[in-house]
Amino acid sequence: MKLKMMYTFLNTDIALIEKELEQRIETKEALITNASLHLLQAGGKRIRPVFVLLAGKFGSYDVNQIKHVAVALELIHMASLVHDDVIDDADMRRGKPTIKAKWDNRIAMYTGDYIFARALETITKIEQVDAHKILSDTMVELTLGEIEQIKDKYDLNQDLRTYLRRIKRKTALLIAASCQLGAIAAGAPESIHKKLFLFGYYVGMSFQITDDILDFTSSEEKLGKPVGSDLLQGNITLPVLYALEDPDFRLKVERLFVADNQTELISEIITYITSSDVIDRSVKVSERYLEKAMMILKELPDNKARKALYQIAKYIGKRKF
Amino acid sequence: MKLKMMYTFLNTDIALIEKELEQRIETKEALITNASLHLLQAGGKRIRPVFVLLAGKFGSYDVNQIKHVAVALELIHMASLVHDDVIDDADMRRGKPTIKAKWDNRIAMYTGDYIFARALETITKIEQVDAHKILSDTMVELTLGEIEQIKDKYDLNQDLRTYLRRIKRKTALLIAASCQLGAIAAGAPESIHKKLFLFGYYVGMSFQITDDILDFTSSEEKLGKPVGSDLLQGNITLPVLYALEDPDFRLKVERLFVADNQTELISEIITYITSSDVIDRSVKVSERYLEKAMMILKELPDNKARKALYQIAKYIGKRKF
Repeated sequence: MKLKMMYTFLNTDIALIEKELEQRIETKEALITNASLHLLQAGGKRIRPVFVLLAGKFGSYDVNQIKHVAVALELIHMASLVHDDVIDDADMRRGKPTIKAKWDNRIAMYTGDYIFARALETITKIEQVDAHKILSDTMVELTLGEIEQIKDKYDLNQDLRTYLRRIKRKTALLIAASCQLGAIAAGAPESIHKKLFLFGYYVGMSFQITDDILDFTSSEEKLGKPVGSDLLQGNITLPVLYALEDPDFRLKVERLFVADNQTELISEIITYITSSDVIDRSVKVSERYLEKAMMILKELPDNKARKALYQIAKYIGKRKF
Repeated sequence: MKLKMMYTFLNTDIALIEKELEQRIETKEALITNASLHLLQAGGKRIRPVFVLLAGKFGSYDVNQIKHVAVALELIHMASLVHDDVIDDADMRRGKPTIKAKWDNRIAMYTGDYIFARALETITKIEQVDAHKILSDTMVELTLGEIEQIKDKYDLNQDLRTYLRRIKRKTALLIAASCQLGAIAAGAPESIHKKLFLFGYYVGMSFQITDDILDFTSSEEKLGKPVGSDLLQGNITLPVLYALEDPDFRLKVERLFVADNQTELISEIITYITSSDVIDRSVKVSERYLEKAMMILKELPDNKARKALYQIAKYIGKRKF
């Protein structure tokens, strides 16, 4: 089943959010509007808005309130992508040139700042002060995750804990916040929104681990960027961490990082990773997080949204791109 | 009279804010703490916190509430400096190497993001939702001002309106917000905090014009960076705008922007600017804004804070560094 088929009952609201996203980033500055729209129109799964809306179904759902949360979360995600592409020196994102590639690093930095600011402006349309607090706390963690990522780049001596803490900050907390804030904006009680936070956290961890696996097992066409991009940018992900237990593999990666021509080496590395057990081992970690997410779901009231969350979580564990 | 002598009655509170600033940016990530502290300890006038505190005196002043606003405003100012230094490729700030010079552009970008996020987290400690809205709106304008600055760089055909709009967004609105938010956090009525906003706006415009003048008339020692830095970075400020009316001067600037060795040309340009009437004309514009600020002050209740604001405004018009 396709992802979008799991929440057809949200179609109208998701279309509304897409429109709001465009409106929120528009300014009289053509340059910044174009740069932001370029990113927006490159698509993306809009998984954070979907989580926000579904979580809202556990309270008194009012799309005209909850849309602000959905838009804010997607904008923060977008802003972090723009800054990440500067850091990773990435030229392609979702099959299109990145802002830093199409314009330059300076424009990308300020476009990211602008989208961040717009996100925060959007969340203040929600009266719940708690929501503002949670979003800004999440941003602090997100930026710390980004700094960790720079620090940990090319570091072959990091351990599993470092990796997990990094993806928690870089990915899982934002998805957790999406679920929690959707519920808060809909006035759901604390017992519910705390559980949704946990659900989002576990799903987010699984989501990122799957992303990190797909970077090796998927195709350039599906990824919208070359296979092995993460490692080429120096990012050590779970499959690599496991593979590094083999000293021969470690040597290969060390050579990759200093090589002038990386084509042959990265292809050897991809072959090693996809043909050894490290993918299976990584999948198991991802599945463990998913199981925890499913356990939490069972504690939530049974409704259409819970079913959709269940299916999305299952999908995330099995997705091929 | 020295700036600090104008508000000695705030000394204890300013010391508290200095301490809070350090605490707010601290994290377990040594790298980011060091980068942020480096900037913090380079000093600065802390003019935004001073405005916040003074504005708070027009309501029921509680330092434990208002300190959050003061810290948030200074952090936003700091974050924007970090990102500006990346854009301007600036190596020195307040007589010390910039973060981008001491570490690198990537660290500077994320340190800026981190400090931004901390600022927003700090403001949410204030319960007034209006304050959150005003701060995030101000950030949107600030980032738009930054983008405008990139776009307008090296553009000799911009006019006075472009310049004024840019400094409004880049400087004046943040000072205006400082004044307004201080009053809001202290529960001052709208009639008061709207006036304080206007006062801050006029003072901020004057402050930036003065800054732009000092870039030519002050010394490297006092500025903490070379004289003429703004123009060397392609930023067209008010004295330059006036001087550009002379075609000979325009030719000089065009040559400066393409020159391999800029030393002699910039020194000729500085001499031209400081010995022609463009400084006087710029000072007049600054003074006009100050007069408007003073007019607003007269409409506010007479108290110690109003006297201090008056003296600070006067100081800003006359400051030599």
